[in-house]
Amino acid sequence: MNKLNLRTNKKNEIIDITEDIRRLTESSGIKNGICTVFCPHTTGAITINEAYDSSVKTDLMFSLDKISPVYKEFRHAEGNSDAHVKSSLIGLSLNLIINKEKLIIGQWQGIFFVEFDGPRNREVYVKFISE
Amino acid sequence: MNKLNLRTNKKNEIIDITEDIRRLTESSGIKNGICTVFCPHTTGAITINEAYDSSVKTDLMFSLDKISPVYKEFRHAEGNSDAHVKSSLIGLSLNLIINKEKLIIGQWQGIFFVEFDGPRNREVYVKFISE
Amino acid sequence: MNKLNLRTNKKNEIIDITEDIRRLTESSGIKNGICTVFCPHTTGAITINEAYDSSVKTDLMFSLDKISPVYKEFRHAEGNSDAHVKSSLIGLSLNLIINKEKLIIGQWQGIFFVEFDGPRNREVYVKFISE
Repeated sequence: MNKLNLRTNKKNEIIDITEDIRRLTESSGIKNGICTVFCPHTTGAITINEAYDSSVKTDLMFSLDKISPVYKEFRHAEGNSDAHVKSSLIGLSLNLIINKEKLIIGQWQGIFFVEFDGPRNREVYVKFISE
Repeated sequence: MNKLNLRTNKKNEIIDITEDIRRLTESSGIKNGICTVFCPHTTGAITINEAYDSSVKTDLMFSLDKISPVYKEFRHAEGNSDAHVKSSLIGLSLNLIINKEKLIIGQWQGIFFVEFDGPRNREVYVKFISE
Repeated sequence: MNKLNLRTNKKNEIIDITEDIRRLTESSGIKNGICTVFCPHTTGAITINEAYDSSVKTDLMFSLDKISPVYKEFRHAEGNSDAHVKSSLIGLSLNLIINKEKLIIGQWQGIFFVEFDGPRNREVYVKFISE
């Protein structure tokens, strides 16, 4: 199992980890198989979206704050339930395909770690399975 | 393939299945690999979130009812389209990493079956793949 | 790695790809394992929901338009940020279980490619891993 270590800088932040995953894929020696990317944090998430225009990340975060606002009815004492909800909405486990030694994602796609309750030190776990 | 059998007791309910998955992992004999957890129901879901403070589960369900309310425009005759929407938002397939015979999740994380249209008898399917 | 080619016809559309995945499963020769279904597009998604009553698809799309509307604050110049948000909410990677040469999904479930920014030509990638 491989680990990425990330440092996030604010409450809502998207960190592009595509090149980290690509580097791990190449050094894994795997030819064909899959790769599981897992976020072990309850206020973070893993997703894939457009990496080319960074305004997509901005708009995604804007919408997520509308979708999961802070409600006065929340009971969790830490006050970050909006972040927990966003984590389950976006999801924290992703499966990628490795084909002919290459990580297969779309032309405009990037793999993102999504921080909903930073700044924090974060980890991402990566596991390769050969076919 | 392994199956868990669950009984849910109300419309919205979160059942912690972490120990069930851990027990299956240990009895599988797998050393390193991945584990797919799958919900075969269209008004249930599988997610991971904080297991320590149960108020996170309460707040998650509260927000999901705001995010996916019952709309008068719904056409599905069973009247549970809000539950179908929640199922696709949260997701029903999850991939976990097994490392050195251990199920790898974060310190505060638990694996949840999420019921959106109970009470019902439910199943969760679990499949292990060795590296 | 297998590829499905799809043609979508409008902005919001759900295409049932269950039979395509089933056919690929049977021709793969795999007995027991998993199957990763991946969408390489940033305004599409993959989900599972009820296939039997098509009004579930209609209601799902209706709700998603409410959950992720077009905001005037959006910065992405292409004007389709609502579609990018929906893609990350629904998710674009799914793991299925293959057991005794059969694709395992629930009785009422179908596997859907979800188009949020059509009409377009789309691909879905499918990878099988034997246990």
